[in-house]
Amino acid sequence: MQLEVARLGHVALETSDLESSIEFFHGTVGLEIVDRDDDSVYLRAVDEYDHHSLSLTEAERSRIDHIGWQTEAPKHVAAFADRFADRGIDVTWIDDGVEPGQGEAIRFEVPNGHQFELYGEMEKPDPPVERRSKLKNRVYDPSDNNPIAPHRIDHLQIWDPDGFECAEWIREELGFQVQEYYDEADGTRWGTFLSACGVKIDLAVVQSSSADDEPAVHHVAYGVDTPNDLFAAHNVMNENDVPVDGIGQHGISRGEFMYARDPTSSHRIEFNTGSYLTLDPHWEPVAWEENDISDGDDHQWIGGIDNLERVYY
Amino acid sequence: MQLEVARLGHVALETSDLESSIEFFHGTVGLEIVDRDDDSVYLRAVDEYDHHSLSLTEAERSRIDHIGWQTEAPKHVAAFADRFADRGIDVTWIDDGVEPGQGEAIRFEVPNGHQFELYGEMEKPDPPVERRSKLKNRVYDPSDNNPIAPHRIDHLQIWDPDGFECAEWIREELGFQVQEYYDEADGTRWGTFLSACGVKIDLAVVQSSSADDEPAVHHVAYGVDTPNDLFAAHNVMNENDVPVDGIGQHGISRGEFMYARDPTSSHRIEFNTGSYLTLDPHWEPVAWEENDISDGDDHQWIGGIDNLERVYY
Amino acid sequence: MQLEVARLGHVALETSDLESSIEFFHGTVGLEIVDRDDDSVYLRAVDEYDHHSLSLTEAERSRIDHIGWQTEAPKHVAAFADRFADRGIDVTWIDDGVEPGQGEAIRFEVPNGHQFELYGEMEKPDPPVERRSKLKNRVYDPSDNNPIAPHRIDHLQIWDPDGFECAEWIREELGFQVQEYYDEADGTRWGTFLSACGVKIDLAVVQSSSADDEPAVHHVAYGVDTPNDLFAAHNVMNENDVPVDGIGQHGISRGEFMYARDPTSSHRIEFNTGSYLTLDPHWEPVAWEENDISDGDDHQWIGGIDNLERVYY
Amino acid sequence: MQLEVARLGHVALETSDLESSIEFFHGTVGLEIVDRDDDSVYLRAVDEYDHHSLSLTEAERSRIDHIGWQTEAPKHVAAFADRFADRGIDVTWIDDGVEPGQGEAIRFEVPNGHQFELYGEMEKPDPPVERRSKLKNRVYDPSDNNPIAPHRIDHLQIWDPDGFECAEWIREELGFQVQEYYDEADGTRWGTFLSACGVKIDLAVVQSSSADDEPAVHHVAYGVDTPNDLFAAHNVMNENDVPVDGIGQHGISRGEFMYARDPTSSHRIEFNTGSYLTLDPHWEPVAWEENDISDGDDHQWIGGIDNLERVYY
Repeated sequence: MQLEVARLGHVALETSDLESSIEFFHGTVGLEIVDRDDDSVYLRAVDEYDHHSLSLTEAERSRIDHIGWQTEAPKHVAAFADRFADRGIDVTWIDDGVEPGQGEAIRFEVPNGHQFELYGEMEKPDPPVERRSKLKNRVYDPSDNNPIAPHRIDHLQIWDPDGFECAEWIREELGFQVQEYYDEADGTRWGTFLSACGVKIDLAVVQSSSADDEPAVHHVAYGVDTPNDLFAAHNVMNENDVPVDGIGQHGISRGEFMYARDPTSSHRIEFNTGSYLTLDPHWEPVAWEENDISDGDDHQWIGGIDNLERVYY
Repeated sequence: MQLEVARLGHVALETSDLESSIEFFHGTVGLEIVDRDDDSVYLRAVDEYDHHSLSLTEAERSRIDHIGWQTEAPKHVAAFADRFADRGIDVTWIDDGVEPGQGEAIRFEVPNGHQFELYGEMEKPDPPVERRSKLKNRVYDPSDNNPIAPHRIDHLQIWDPDGFECAEWIREELGFQVQEYYDEADGTRWGTFLSACGVKIDLAVVQSSSADDEPAVHHVAYGVDTPNDLFAAHNVMNENDVPVDGIGQHGISRGEFMYARDPTSSHRIEFNTGSYLTLDPHWEPVAWEENDISDGDDHQWIGGIDNLERVYY
Repeated sequence: MQLEVARLGHVALETSDLESSIEFFHGTVGLEIVDRDDDSVYLRAVDEYDHHSLSLTEAERSRIDHIGWQTEAPKHVAAFADRFADRGIDVTWIDDGVEPGQGEAIRFEVPNGHQFELYGEMEKPDPPVERRSKLKNRVYDPSDNNPIAPHRIDHLQIWDPDGFECAEWIREELGFQVQEYYDEADGTRWGTFLSACGVKIDLAVVQSSSADDEPAVHHVAYGVDTPNDLFAAHNVMNENDVPVDGIGQHGISRGEFMYARDPTSSHRIEFNTGSYLTLDPHWEPVAWEENDISDGDDHQWIGGIDNLERVYY
Repeated sequence: MQLEVARLGHVALETSDLESSIEFFHGTVGLEIVDRDDDSVYLRAVDEYDHHSLSLTEAERSRIDHIGWQTEAPKHVAAFADRFADRGIDVTWIDDGVEPGQGEAIRFEVPNGHQFELYGEMEKPDPPVERRSKLKNRVYDPSDNNPIAPHRIDHLQIWDPDGFECAEWIREELGFQVQEYYDEADGTRWGTFLSACGVKIDLAVVQSSSADDEPAVHHVAYGVDTPNDLFAAHNVMNENDVPVDGIGQHGISRGEFMYARDPTSSHRIEFNTGSYLTLDPHWEPVAWEENDISDGDDHQWIGGIDNLERVYY
């Protein structure tokens, strides 16, 4: 049995003020609230069928709890657990339903500390009947969506004290493919852009500036249709006093982006569009070196990042 | 004193079910409700400062009451009244405030029956403070706008039993300029596209199929940014069981369009973008003849009109 | 070994006037000419690395020669050949290089007559050096591209005298997945929308109106970015007297489309955008029934198809 | 007779390397060459009827020669000349045809040194027949246009050692209206945004950092349709090693922008979209004060200006 991770499922974030972070992720960004329990809220984007792609939990301070990945088949979860046991990697089982909507899962730590979760099944709750699209292949009727609501989770970017080690582990143990990577002049692998699903970037691992840095989330990216939509979302951020860190186009991935931060938790979200699919079975990773992209300091092709604060937890 | 009409101001429509028409124009289309009285509601688009660009009044049946035009200066209202008196044209004075938000005005009938109104001043009420944009040159903060809300009234198209006569009168008496016109093979002037403001089409007068037809409104057009927005608006119409009459690009005016109809009153609205400005002081009207545009039967350049029901009142 | 088809590779079309069809596919549409030999020309889109996604060959009349699919691994080609031999399906081997740029391949007939080709490897020629993008992950520099040049081949739609039988065979023998399907009121499977790559529609098989119809191509679809680009392409078609069959949005697939036809060969191309990815490992085919989509006769959600001529060869 | 300037007509720029600047303005940006003589080339945008909106002349160094404005009527040229004579302002007559395509004109200096030209008539040469659009209201067929070709000249921004004085003179003597203005904390009028045509900004006068600065051009703006087009143009600039100074949205005017510079002459062009029309006869200038726009240092609402080099001639 070939074990496969099918896709990025969800990101579990913590915040020191749940209501205020809900106001950002739901009220401003336009993610839909699917479920709540005492300390947590579960959200999905308007074109997502699964129960959640983001959860927010009240905690002492802002941090990431775990990153959830869905396996190609439910039985792969136990099979991965067996493999990790063979490798001496600690695994924690999470029972069916402990995370609302989600089947049984395992959690484990990738090198340098990020917590990953693998699960096989997740419920697909219908939206409220009055919000269900008349199209059988669309979840929410756009009539009442937030004007800037992104469609689907696209990818996650994390900072790691040894990004190369972390990315290599994920490639080897989880079978992710490398779609692009970027090396600095001294040979340091600044960033590795990995695909779980095989056709697009699902996870970017970038190098922390200091080896003492705790693992952290750079941004969670949600997809929109066009660069026009990035301007629309930026407008809404400005109107709502949400800090924005730039608009433009990445060289790596070619995706157009707009970065905004939850004013409470500082968790950063990317509105993302463009990019490309790698359906090519012979795809070779795109190897960038420093200065390959004109505006080299921030690796952007168009526009740039004004103020990329590292989130320290 | 050169009398001038500055711009299209508002269209006063009647409907047999006010609440239901409000649901369409406000709830679905995204015009903002500025004012209400017993039988009427006054709406404007999200980028309009003036009190209203559309009014809806409950009446026995669907019809248009009048079309409001703002003069270049307030004093032009009385001056036009004097001129019309000289010409033997009946004028009715409307006192300041009778139409909410509007200064004193005159109403009169153009050939074949459409009621026009000229006024000089209209209030510019602020939006609710929580919805005011942080930009000094934008009215509503887009955060809470309807996702498809158009920006501004753009133009009006009317059917007339003798379109040529009607358009000529408007040109001569009101000083509108002809931006484009379209002649059928037998020499009939099918449509005249007039500019009050001098830089874009404000009023299209098109020929009714029968000389016995009552004057009627073909559509009221509101502007959006891009053809993408036309698709977004069409999606919302379909989700809400609103009849849609086409999407595409006109040959005349070059404007891209999407037509939808209030299910209750059948009043048609055009979502409109594209077109061009005629800042050229030597602009000569564009003279179309039948078959000049490839898809000649409906004068469209791209796409077309599926089902253009004439509204009979 | 699990045999897999990785993706739609190319479509081999024949035309009675090669130069004139080149003028359409290259000159008007903006596909790039990569290679020519005596009777054929090989084209790719501006964001494609592989040698060709379309070939045109001069022949007595317009027809489709074959549809090329790339296997997940080169060795799958021979493995598929073995499997087909076991099933009693005739296979013809095509030597490396017989089709320019392509490794060894097999051709065979799917039920009712379409010719399929499976190959594992294709050359990735660089564009002319002066046209290579400065971005390492982009093929052509957009500076000199045709203004409407689509990016990549997206999918193919074929007519089949027994569409259900054909689609079932492809699903069972080639491992394609069903993403959506559409049944008429009498239970006839009008259309099956299949994925080779697993994440999007690559092949639509639709029912011919007559069981005597020869298999035929409905359209070859190439991707663009936005509905705006569909209007831009439609404009260019109209300016060049290219017949256009509609603009709008499909209900099935949710893709926005514009259809145009090579005036010489009548081969139809779709400019296509929108749609969605099915990364979900538990995706269930979307089952449409007649009248599920409002504008039922042509299965469109927005706009529609004006004149969908069946191409008879 | 009320003397009126109808619109911005053209900007006459000088460059030390004509061929190289043609390569930028024609080859990269996509302005069309209409005419050439010994030292000069005359260009227009693809949706312009008049002979030119930009001229380039070979000279010792990069500078602006004059800014051409078209009067509402040809007779206004002489009337303005008379008025200036009364005011003691020197006027130079330019004979019909001296500037190719242009009728007789006057040139004069506005306070602090910019040279203005007023003319009443300009030829409207047809494009080459094979490039004429089939639409009677469109000049060039987009089939062969440069993929990023802007449509029309939109406005001009100039630096002036005493911007307030300059803008006031233009308002009083030429009848321009103020659409917006921006005052710094110390009361200095940083910028005045003026309208000649009455419905949109045609000229921005901004304060030089030093009173000794020679008058200079900040940028010439040409219009495109959408922010997507700004990204497309920026891509082309990057591919061609053209320096780019930013992409985003201005707070003042609300226009989205992308700035690029001719690598030879350093003349800056703005690709521009968005903004709004002021058809309102009671429009009051929008009064900005420092810090009214969030990103106050460069007055931008979205994105910003990376590197706004002052061009010293």
